[in-house]
Amino acid sequence: MTLSIIPVPGIGEVQAGMDLAMVILGALEAAGLDLEDHDIVVVTHKVVSKAEGAVASYGSDAEYQAIKEREATAVIRRRGDLMIAVTRQGFICANAGVDRSNVKPGQVVLHPRDPDRSAHRMRVRFELATDKQLAVIVTDTFGRAWRRGLTDVAIGVSGMPAIHDYRGTTDTWGRELEVTEVAVVDEIASAADLVMGKADAVPVAIIRGLSWQEGEGRATDLVRSPGEDLFR
Amino acid sequence: MTLSIIPVPGIGEVQAGMDLAMVILGALEAAGLDLEDHDIVVVTHKVVSKAEGAVASYGSDAEYQAIKEREATAVIRRRGDLMIAVTRQGFICANAGVDRSNVKPGQVVLHPRDPDRSAHRMRVRFELATDKQLAVIVTDTFGRAWRRGLTDVAIGVSGMPAIHDYRGTTDTWGRELEVTEVAVVDEIASAADLVMGKADAVPVAIIRGLSWQEGEGRATDLVRSPGEDLFR
Repeated sequence: MTLSIIPVPGIGEVQAGMDLAMVILGALEAAGLDLEDHDIVVVTHKVVSKAEGAVASYGSDAEYQAIKEREATAVIRRRGDLMIAVTRQGFICANAGVDRSNVKPGQVVLHPRDPDRSAHRMRVRFELATDKQLAVIVTDTFGRAWRRGLTDVAIGVSGMPAIHDYRGTTDTWGRELEVTEVAVVDEIASAADLVMGKADAVPVAIIRGLSWQEGEGRATDLVRSPGEDLFR
Repeated sequence: MTLSIIPVPGIGEVQAGMDLAMVILGALEAAGLDLEDHDIVVVTHKVVSKAEGAVASYGSDAEYQAIKEREATAVIRRRGDLMIAVTRQGFICANAGVDRSNVKPGQVVLHPRDPDRSAHRMRVRFELATDKQLAVIVTDTFGRAWRRGLTDVAIGVSGMPAIHDYRGTTDTWGRELEVTEVAVVDEIASAADLVMGKADAVPVAIIRGLSWQEGEGRATDLVRSPGEDLFR
């Protein structure tokens, strides 16, 4: 029942066009790690975006601001340079996911074009290479409306549902649970971040020992429709 | 470097007046588990509240609603029966932390009167009993403004800072990180929830192998002041 969170070292700097799944499998092998059945491979989006070429160059601060505006499909709030915006997938985060950290000077990393698809493609590669049943989660670091500090969340998912649905489950006294939908992939993303760090080059972690429901899921399942959203 | 998340079984039903720290130490011993130096003991607030008598009885739905109103220091949004409210500590969550699940019919569990203090008292007891340096986190399950599903967060902390501060840290290229404050105790709360489940009686988990900064911290450090809050 104990859960292990295993950092995967040795990924190195990822360049556009690299086969990231192969890079990760190589790093696992070099570290003496095997993928086991029902492992979850958590990958920070930054290396996914770099491999897919989802980066942009800027020469001035005005150009950097323009990239942020271009990536946003809607802006929720602005304060100074901070822009809380909606991404193409519907995620709400700072700067529409555009980030200047851990990338060459003069470049920014964008969100992958379709992070669920990125996760799916990696999962297929990992499963073919290992003959195990796996899940893949692509993560980013988001702020929260009412709490200081940031946490990692899922922006791409493959192989498992994004939400663990407890509807119909009863407690010891036979009462239906009030907590019915747990964003389990966000909890996994946060757990993985604990071994990754922000400045260290550990963009991949393995979650081992979690009992998860099989099935198709997408990180976009976590997007609350504007009609249900009380806080836009 | 591998992190372990170890569920602690055998806590059983907690009653008002019980010495929860002793109950947890007993459950650890019965399960053949020892606390090690730098372990983090994560405890769901529900057992803390029950032990401290932070529960209330209601005979009708109107009385249940009245308890919620009484626990709220301010209301952020309402929709039907759902109330997003500010707790005494300043946390923003559904129903001001009042929950009817996993408690005797006719009762609700409230937040502990001072969850940081609850965490501190347990840490002192654990450290005295084991002669190890430990941290304690008390958790609850909160919704998020813009993402479906709930995740566990910290509402009480002792022994470690709530936020890991990366200010001044630079990336490989010497650029200051844009992500400067990670809510590490919320990530730990979410990680622990992965082994706890919502209907199972596993209200305690041990996080082992995490390298954390020593120092005093409080979960209330995560409260964003109303002036900084763009989303009230």
